[in-house]
Amino acid sequence: MNARELVERKKRGGKLTVKEIQFLVTGFTAGTIPDYQMAAWLMAVWFRGLEADETLALTESMMHSGDTVDLKEIGGFKVDKHSTGGVGDKVSLPLVGIAMACGLRVPMLSGRGLGHTGGTLDKLESIPGYSIEFNEQRFREALTDVGGVIIGQTASLVPADRSLYALRDVTATVDCIPLIVASILSKKFAAGVEGVVMDVKVGSGAFMRDLETARQLAAALIAVGQRFQRQVSVVFTRMDEPLGVAVGNALEVVESVELLRGGGPEDLREVTYELCAEMLQISGQVSSREQAFQQVDAVVRSGAALDKFRQMVEFQGGKLDWDAKDCGLTIAPVAAVLEAPEDGVLQAVDGYEVGMSVVQLGGGRQRKDDKVDPAVGLQWNVRIGDRVSRGQPLVQIHTTSQEDATTVVARLSAALTWSEKIVEPQPCILGRMSEAS
Amino acid sequence: MNARELVERKKRGGKLTVKEIQFLVTGFTAGTIPDYQMAAWLMAVWFRGLEADETLALTESMMHSGDTVDLKEIGGFKVDKHSTGGVGDKVSLPLVGIAMACGLRVPMLSGRGLGHTGGTLDKLESIPGYSIEFNEQRFREALTDVGGVIIGQTASLVPADRSLYALRDVTATVDCIPLIVASILSKKFAAGVEGVVMDVKVGSGAFMRDLETARQLAAALIAVGQRFQRQVSVVFTRMDEPLGVAVGNALEVVESVELLRGGGPEDLREVTYELCAEMLQISGQVSSREQAFQQVDAVVRSGAALDKFRQMVEFQGGKLDWDAKDCGLTIAPVAAVLEAPEDGVLQAVDGYEVGMSVVQLGGGRQRKDDKVDPAVGLQWNVRIGDRVSRGQPLVQIHTTSQEDATTVVARLSAALTWSEKIVEPQPCILGRMSEAS
Repeated sequence: MNARELVERKKRGGKLTVKEIQFLVTGFTAGTIPDYQMAAWLMAVWFRGLEADETLALTESMMHSGDTVDLKEIGGFKVDKHSTGGVGDKVSLPLVGIAMACGLRVPMLSGRGLGHTGGTLDKLESIPGYSIEFNEQRFREALTDVGGVIIGQTASLVPADRSLYALRDVTATVDCIPLIVASILSKKFAAGVEGVVMDVKVGSGAFMRDLETARQLAAALIAVGQRFQRQVSVVFTRMDEPLGVAVGNALEVVESVELLRGGGPEDLREVTYELCAEMLQISGQVSSREQAFQQVDAVVRSGAALDKFRQMVEFQGGKLDWDAKDCGLTIAPVAAVLEAPEDGVLQAVDGYEVGMSVVQLGGGRQRKDDKVDPAVGLQWNVRIGDRVSRGQPLVQIHTTSQEDATTVVARLSAALTWSEKIVEPQPCILGRMSEAS
Repeated sequence: MNARELVERKKRGGKLTVKEIQFLVTGFTAGTIPDYQMAAWLMAVWFRGLEADETLALTESMMHSGDTVDLKEIGGFKVDKHSTGGVGDKVSLPLVGIAMACGLRVPMLSGRGLGHTGGTLDKLESIPGYSIEFNEQRFREALTDVGGVIIGQTASLVPADRSLYALRDVTATVDCIPLIVASILSKKFAAGVEGVVMDVKVGSGAFMRDLETARQLAAALIAVGQRFQRQVSVVFTRMDEPLGVAVGNALEVVESVELLRGGGPEDLREVTYELCAEMLQISGQVSSREQAFQQVDAVVRSGAALDKFRQMVEFQGGKLDWDAKDCGLTIAPVAAVLEAPEDGVLQAVDGYEVGMSVVQLGGGRQRKDDKVDPAVGLQWNVRIGDRVSRGQPLVQIHTTSQEDATTVVARLSAALTWSEKIVEPQPCILGRMSEAS
C-alpha cells in the first residue's frame, strides 16, 4: 500500500477501503506518511467527498489513534454537547450545570476560540484558578463525584485529530463535511460518551452559512453515530446576531451564572434549554419533550443547576465570588458605545464582523500564540427586528484601549443593516434532526 | 498575501494574479511556503485548472526561479525537441545529428527514464565517457563549436521545477496539463531556445492515452509559446508498440547510429524526419515541408548527420567504435525469445507493459536511486498488423538473468492481443498543431 496511490484513487473519485484509511491515519500520525501527501489527499477529499463507509473508517481510525476512555463503570448516561461555533455562544457553561442537576454525566471536551468564534476553554480560563487540564483519573473523579467536567483535549486522546486539524487549517480543507464529522465524533467517542447533542449553528456568525449545508453535516453526523451505536442528535440554531447580550470571555461567564440564577437573556435561555432537553431525551430519562423541559426548568428554579456548576468550577480549581453580580471577575471599562445612526429597524447583523471585533479587542486570537484578554468584550443590547431611535445606545465596548474602541465602533456600525421595514421575529431554534427523524 | 488564502481561492475556482503566482513559486522555492500548502494548491489546480494567464505566470515565475541563458550571441536558430515520453523513443539521438547538419543549433536539455518510459540521458550514459553535466561555458562552446549538445538539467536552471516536480510526483498531481506546460516550457525557455518542437505521444505506451487530451496539452503549450513570442509546434505520434526495434539503453544507441548510417527501422525514420522537418520549418530556413524533408534526407545520405552526432558525442567525452555494427557497446546476451503463441494477426500491444518489462530487466528505475543497466533490453521484431505463425520468434530478451527473462516473456506474452482479423496499417504520425494552424 502506498500513500501516493491512495491520493491518486481519491483524486479520480474512487473509494478507499477501511484498511487503506487506517493506513493513512496511522502513517500520518506516526510521521511515516508526510504531511504533503496527506495535504493532497485532504484536498482530493474536499473535491470528491467521502462515502459513508469511508467517513466511518476515518472516524474509527482517528478515534483509535490514541487512548480511548471507557466510562461504563460510571453510572448514569454519559452525554456531551458540541457546538459548531458562534458569537456569544456560552451555552456550554450553564448547560453543564443544568444537565448534571438533571442526573446526566457530562464529560465535556472543549476547544478554544477559532477564527471569529469564541471558545469554551477561553471563557472558563477567565475564572481565576480554573484548570482545563486533567489526567484520566481526575477526569473520572470529576464525573463520579460532581457529575461533569469541562476540560481541553488531552494529549493522549485522538492525536490524529490534532495533527490532521493543524494541517487542514493551513491547507484550506477545514470546510469539508466528512472531515468535520470524523474530527468531532472521533474525539467525543474516544472520551467515552454514549450520546452527543450537536448544536449546528447557521448564519452570518456561523461556519455554516445556510441550512442546506447544515442539514448535510447533520445527516453525516447522525449516520456515523448510528454505525457506532451511539446517539447523535442535532439542533439547528440561528447564529447571525450574538447569542445573549455578552460577547467576551469574562462577560460571558457572568451571563452564564446569571442564567443559572434564573435571569439572563431570553434567547440564551431558549437555546440552552432546548439543548439540555435534547440531552435528556436521548438519555431515555424522560418520556417526552415536555417532561424534559419541565425538569430543566425545575433545576434552574431550585438553584440545583447553579449549585452543580459551582461544584464543577470548584473541583477544577476555579474561584468565583458567587454572591457578586460580576462574580468578582475583572471586566474592562466601557470605552465607547455604539449608538443608533438613524431611526429605524435592525434588519440584519453580520455575525462574522461582530466576532472579529471581539478578536480585535484581544478577546480572541489573531495568531495561535496570542494571549487572550478575558476582560474585554461587548454588551449587545439590540436584536434583529428592534425599532430604535437615532442616538440610542446599542452596544457597549469594554476595553482599556480607546483606539481599539474607536475602530470597533466603526466596524460594528458597518456590520448592521437598517431600514424602515418591519422584520418578523426570528426564531432561535431552526430545526432538529435525529436518528428517529 | 498568504498561501492559505491562495489555496482557498483556487479551491473555490477563483483566479490568481501574476503577483500571487510569483509569490507561491518564489516562496516554495525559497522554502518559506511549506510543501504541504503547495501540495494542497497543486491538487486544487488539478481539479480547477489554470487559466491561460495563470499558466503563463506560472511558466514565467518558474523560468525566473534560477539562471536563464541568453543565446543571442550564438548564430543560427536555437531549437529544441521535447518528447512527452515513450517506449523505444530514441529519436533525440539521431535527430540532434540531423538538425545540426541542417544548420540548426540544438541546446537540448534532457531527462532520465520516468515510470515505464526511457530517458535520453540514460541512453547516452551507456556510451563510455559521455558526460551529461556541462557548465554554461561548455554548453555555449558546444553550441558554437559543434552546433548541439544533449545534457541534463543543470542545478542553476529552473530550481522551482525540480522542487515542484518532485512534489507533484508524490502527490499524484503530475497529470495536469497547465502544470505540465509550465514545467516543460520554463526549462526550454530558460535554456534560451527560440523554438521547441513537441513530440506529444499518444497511446498505451504514452502518458496521454487519447488524442483529445493530447490536443488540449498541445493547445496549452502553443498558447504559452505565443505569449513568450517563441515558436512552439506540436507533432502527435502514435505510441502503443515500441518505436523502432530496440528498447533498452545501449541497444537504442546502436539503433540511432544505424539510422544515421542510412539504415534502421522505418517507423523510427518516419518520426525522426517529421520532427526534424518541423524544426526546420519553424526556423524559417526552409520555404516548404518538401524542402525540409529533402534537406533532412540529404544530410543523412551524405553522412553529414552521422558526422555531427559523432562530433557531439566526442565533445561530450563519449567513446564509441564508429566502425563496429554494435558501436563497441556491451549488449547483454539473448536469454530468451518470445515466440508467437498461435497463428494470427497482432491486433494491439500494451506499450506500458513493454516499457515496464525493460524496467524489470534493470534498464529503467523502480526507485529513484536504482542504477540502470545499459546492456539489457528487447529487440522487438513484430508490428501491429503483422501476420505470424505459431512459434515464430517475435521479441529477443537481452539479459544475463534467466529468471528475469522468464518473467518478462510471460509479461510480454500477456501484453499482446491476437486474432485472425486483418488490421489496417497504423500511421506513425497522428497529426500536427502549431501557431499557424
